[in-house]
Amino acid sequence: MHEQKRQLAILGSTGSIGTQALDVVRQHPESFEVYALTANNQVDLLIRQAREFLPEMVVIANESHYETLKAGLQDLPVKVWAGQEAVAQVVEAEPIDMVLTAMVGYSGLKPTIHAIKAGKTIALANKETLVIAGELITQLALEHRTPILPVDSEHSAIFQCLVGEGDNPIEKIWLTASGGPFRTFSKEQLQKVTKNEALKHPNWTMGAKVTIDSASLMNKGFEMIEAKWLFGVTPEQIQVLVHPQSIIHSMVQFEDASVKAQLGMPDMHLPIQYALAYPQRLPAPFERLDFQRFHTLTFEEPDTEKFRNLGFAYEAVRQSGNAPCILNAANEIVVAAFLNDQISFLAMSDVIEQTMAAVAFVAAPSYDDYVQTDAEARAKALEITHKISNSNLLV
Amino acid sequence: MHEQKRQLAILGSTGSIGTQALDVVRQHPESFEVYALTANNQVDLLIRQAREFLPEMVVIANESHYETLKAGLQDLPVKVWAGQEAVAQVVEAEPIDMVLTAMVGYSGLKPTIHAIKAGKTIALANKETLVIAGELITQLALEHRTPILPVDSEHSAIFQCLVGEGDNPIEKIWLTASGGPFRTFSKEQLQKVTKNEALKHPNWTMGAKVTIDSASLMNKGFEMIEAKWLFGVTPEQIQVLVHPQSIIHSMVQFEDASVKAQLGMPDMHLPIQYALAYPQRLPAPFERLDFQRFHTLTFEEPDTEKFRNLGFAYEAVRQSGNAPCILNAANEIVVAAFLNDQISFLAMSDVIEQTMAAVAFVAAPSYDDYVQTDAEARAKALEITHKISNSNLLV
Repeated sequence: MHEQKRQLAILGSTGSIGTQALDVVRQHPESFEVYALTANNQVDLLIRQAREFLPEMVVIANESHYETLKAGLQDLPVKVWAGQEAVAQVVEAEPIDMVLTAMVGYSGLKPTIHAIKAGKTIALANKETLVIAGELITQLALEHRTPILPVDSEHSAIFQCLVGEGDNPIEKIWLTASGGPFRTFSKEQLQKVTKNEALKHPNWTMGAKVTIDSASLMNKGFEMIEAKWLFGVTPEQIQVLVHPQSIIHSMVQFEDASVKAQLGMPDMHLPIQYALAYPQRLPAPFERLDFQRFHTLTFEEPDTEKFRNLGFAYEAVRQSGNAPCILNAANEIVVAAFLNDQISFLAMSDVIEQTMAAVAFVAAPSYDDYVQTDAEARAKALEITHKISNSNLLV
Repeated sequence: MHEQKRQLAILGSTGSIGTQALDVVRQHPESFEVYALTANNQVDLLIRQAREFLPEMVVIANESHYETLKAGLQDLPVKVWAGQEAVAQVVEAEPIDMVLTAMVGYSGLKPTIHAIKAGKTIALANKETLVIAGELITQLALEHRTPILPVDSEHSAIFQCLVGEGDNPIEKIWLTASGGPFRTFSKEQLQKVTKNEALKHPNWTMGAKVTIDSASLMNKGFEMIEAKWLFGVTPEQIQVLVHPQSIIHSMVQFEDASVKAQLGMPDMHLPIQYALAYPQRLPAPFERLDFQRFHTLTFEEPDTEKFRNLGFAYEAVRQSGNAPCILNAANEIVVAAFLNDQISFLAMSDVIEQTMAAVAFVAAPSYDDYVQTDAEARAKALEITHKISNSNLLV
């Protein structure tokens, strides 16, 4: 970059996306400077990161780690805070140019709203923010003229296909999906899958939550909702296409029948760097695509009878209002329960379905409505989860 | 288009590209107007086209058809000319915005030079112009600030992948090739292929010359040279990739390892319309890509031992100077001879090889040098062709 270094706030710096973002910064000290780092729980790693990148500020969301963090950085001129509120506040610091939202789940919503209001460019890795409150967020971004750059590989692919297209309308988005580790499983096989099987994604290395969401296709449902908001299309314009090799990261079809695609090895470093350096592409040592190895690319329709979550996502976004927020809250509960060996893989969808039916619909939710919906949906999903979990114990 | 209608000159209007360009104009009367039409020999079709599109001017290159043309349009206010010189002159007419160069072979060079000097945007379908005189043409276009928009489907694909990329350098171009009708043939089978077999392209419907060039992979060699000039890359940066389904029309790899591709059904209407309407994409009824039908895309290396022409093209562009001009002239002769049943499919490469060795190399040719090289190479290629042809008769 020829301008001065881009000042970054990395929220969720100890997670999968956060650490890979710091890899990118490490490779390009001429382009980036880390102004703020925040993490939820991993205080030791946060201390190591802060010692390496010397940000102005660090925040640990879980306040019980505050003293450890403070002690670990006492010899350095780094400001140290703790708590969820502090995360939402550091993003407003004047020198920050761009906020990478790489935390997991609902917790991304509030800091993202603060960052948008402060006029910071958002590199959005926390898709749940748009799933929960897409209308609110895109409206705010419009008002504050804040660009939202996608980090998810699929949305980065779509974004890369759209640069330079000006006002040419999108006819259709082909949202590609690996299909996850259980793509070819029968319903009977799905009944018995374990946590460890679900955590083995065939192509991508990601955090636990998104890996389970990938196995259940909820991740693709969330991405469909995210794409709707990022690119201003209807759900009907977004077609999920299973592509087991994960080489084509998504495609855009225009009104002249032309389709553009972005391809590459499945490596999150690329879309992270693209968002951080946009509109420039920085030279990078990432593995190049090898068509001798990937000589066959295949496509198939997703099976929404086996993977019901994808249908729930379309249903939620069609209902709109607080429905996607309910969907997300229920999903956060069931994924945690599944990772905790409390419910089976297929039962996750049952809980989500029942939660969506049980929580009151709000057509035009305010921020406070989202907060309340989230709390209510979590409570309801927990209750249903326990019921299912107990009934299984009895069997 | 919101501005006034784009005024077009269509050179080679009765050929495959020319007639498809007129299909596009017919669909979008709000965007285009035909100012000039030129054809080589097909006077009856040219008359019908002129009666439909009412251009200001028409030219028939073959002067023997002048009276027929004149008589066929006598009731209309259309100016009628004949001869190669007239083709090169009509493109200079002041109202013309864009010149589509859709004639075949060497004959495209001179009118293209005239059009560039007159500041007309070039929609380049005549790839031989850049094969023969790429340095001269790109230098002229730079001096006269004349955009050259590619019409070839591969180059259109690359161009579509590059819009919006600003100064981001190209790392590599993946130039896709169907492999032609003889992709899986052995050398022994290739020895015996007939004209009719060579004229059956598996995916594309095109003119006879380019169809034979596709079967022999000379077309891909020419496209490699064309890509070098259009996109300012070295031949080493262009990798030909055989992709038998012809769905991915080519790809660009950037320095961050990201690859962008353009896909679609094999239909020349799309790249023609893209060039004519650029930067706008006009809505069009062209067939949409169907991933249920094209559920498997494959890639393989080209076999340059069986298809020697591709190697000749790399060799010619590495030598530079008048070498590509010799290559093209020899190829025009052998394709005509093959279509005339005078030489075999594989003998085409032998004649080209011998002609390239026989004609004197000129390192920095002027326009006149190109004219002389072309004449000399044709004479030499004809001589070698007759020798081979006669020796075959004796066997």
